[in-house]
Amino acid sequence: MMGVVNLVESDFNITVVGLGLIGGSYAMALRELNPRNLWGIDINKNTIRIAEEQGIIDKGYVNPEIPLRKSDIVIICLYPDLTIKFMKDNMNLFKSKAIITDTAGIKDKIVKEINTFIREDIEFIGGHPMAGRECGGLAFASKDIFSGANYIITPTRRNKAKNIELIEDIIKKIGCKKIVKISPEKHDEVIAFTSQLPHILAVSLVSSDIEEDVGSFIGGSFKDATRVAMINSELWTELLIDNSNNIINQIKVFEDNIANIKRAIINSDSSFLKSTFEKVRLKREELK
Amino acid sequence: MMGVVNLVESDFNITVVGLGLIGGSYAMALRELNPRNLWGIDINKNTIRIAEEQGIIDKGYVNPEIPLRKSDIVIICLYPDLTIKFMKDNMNLFKSKAIITDTAGIKDKIVKEINTFIREDIEFIGGHPMAGRECGGLAFASKDIFSGANYIITPTRRNKAKNIELIEDIIKKIGCKKIVKISPEKHDEVIAFTSQLPHILAVSLVSSDIEEDVGSFIGGSFKDATRVAMINSELWTELLIDNSNNIINQIKVFEDNIANIKRAIINSDSSFLKSTFEKVRLKREELK
Repeated sequence: MMGVVNLVESDFNITVVGLGLIGGSYAMALRELNPRNLWGIDINKNTIRIAEEQGIIDKGYVNPEIPLRKSDIVIICLYPDLTIKFMKDNMNLFKSKAIITDTAGIKDKIVKEINTFIREDIEFIGGHPMAGRECGGLAFASKDIFSGANYIITPTRRNKAKNIELIEDIIKKIGCKKIVKISPEKHDEVIAFTSQLPHILAVSLVSSDIEEDVGSFIGGSFKDATRVAMINSELWTELLIDNSNNIINQIKVFEDNIANIKRAIINSDSSFLKSTFEKVRLKREELK
Repeated sequence: MMGVVNLVESDFNITVVGLGLIGGSYAMALRELNPRNLWGIDINKNTIRIAEEQGIIDKGYVNPEIPLRKSDIVIICLYPDLTIKFMKDNMNLFKSKAIITDTAGIKDKIVKEINTFIREDIEFIGGHPMAGRECGGLAFASKDIFSGANYIITPTRRNKAKNIELIEDIIKKIGCKKIVKISPEKHDEVIAFTSQLPHILAVSLVSSDIEEDVGSFIGGSFKDATRVAMINSELWTELLIDNSNNIINQIKVFEDNIANIKRAIINSDSSFLKSTFEKVRLKREELK
């Protein structure tokens, strides 16, 4: 590709902001790219100490000023609203020509708000790695969480092609399988269906009254359907409220679908059930 | 345990009826118990030929008369309505004192109907192994599907303790982890929640219009939530219609739960969402 900056041959300082599950994993994966300096920013001194001791970062800071002034690339791994706040609060500290990306699960609000106040000489490119774990925090971080994952980026007209390519280069090098470029609006619309709705279904299923001995009646279907019910309550409350229009639309479609099945069961409508199950089977097989 | 007949030391003929995924797997697992004869009954001559050639059964029959007259234990691995029909059509062929069990995913209708016409000198004990695969048929059968699985049996007052124990003994020896004894009514009530509802959610989710490129936006949550959408349409249509009252109740509870979450998102009710997510997380962790 013309114009691609090859990170590994470059001489960049990278800062990861927020050393939780995703930030910690990102730092671990970035280490293999051998950046000049790999810094971390976190509000928790203990987290910084552990990340330094384990060599996950070269040095960590509670005060963002020192690393931001020298960082060519900044990867923000915070909750959506904190991502916007971090950008706003530290706008004057970024190095000229810095390229900044984030990892939050919604994109439209973040990209739009940041684009209202971002400096002309720096760039923000929204990102969303389709990777996670049931447990949060640096203790569960691993560079392997990106291995084979899909990664969505949401560049806008503000972004230069060479900077988008640099972010793509990093994403490939941390092990992701596929990069999808899409608008922030479209990202939020699709993710409401493929990620947020399944989480809401899992939560709604576990919300039913469960009898004491229900564990003995559980097979793979219940386990799989409820694995993601163990969500981070703070983060997911934000994600759902920030993407409320899309997620409400998806819930409504889902409610219609389950109401159709309920009606068919009430009416013993075998032919509707059979044809629905057959259609769905083919559709799901195509996704494998 | 007093009075337990140890199958391995006994000298029994066993017949498996229906050599599909469950019947084939059952026969494979029973082989390790070294019964005197292990026979199979299937309507498909080709399936019988393959099962014989692979040594899954000693001999197979399309006509049930020959094996049933000599079988001490009969394991019926058919769809619910066919299970009842097989019992009715062949009632005069069973050996005196034969013990018969089945593997269908609903129990109340089966046990009640069979108990209206069963001979006094034989016994039927309903069973439901919590085991399955996305693909059906003998080709996918494996004795390992029972390994570590839960197994529900639904004996009634008609069943002698020693016969229940013999079925339990078989279940343990094919590798199941836990046996739950429960009434057929209660089985159907609980299974509507732990198995049938998760399958309906998966189907309802995949029923939504899926855009062509949705595959790139899929993470673990969608994959897990929809794995069981690939169901056998004939079997599941029967299971849901045969257990319609319980499943409709469960769908209604689920609809209320998701409506509560939808309302909270519409109203930006963070405290409801957070407290729901926290409660659900604890509940789901207890099930692990």
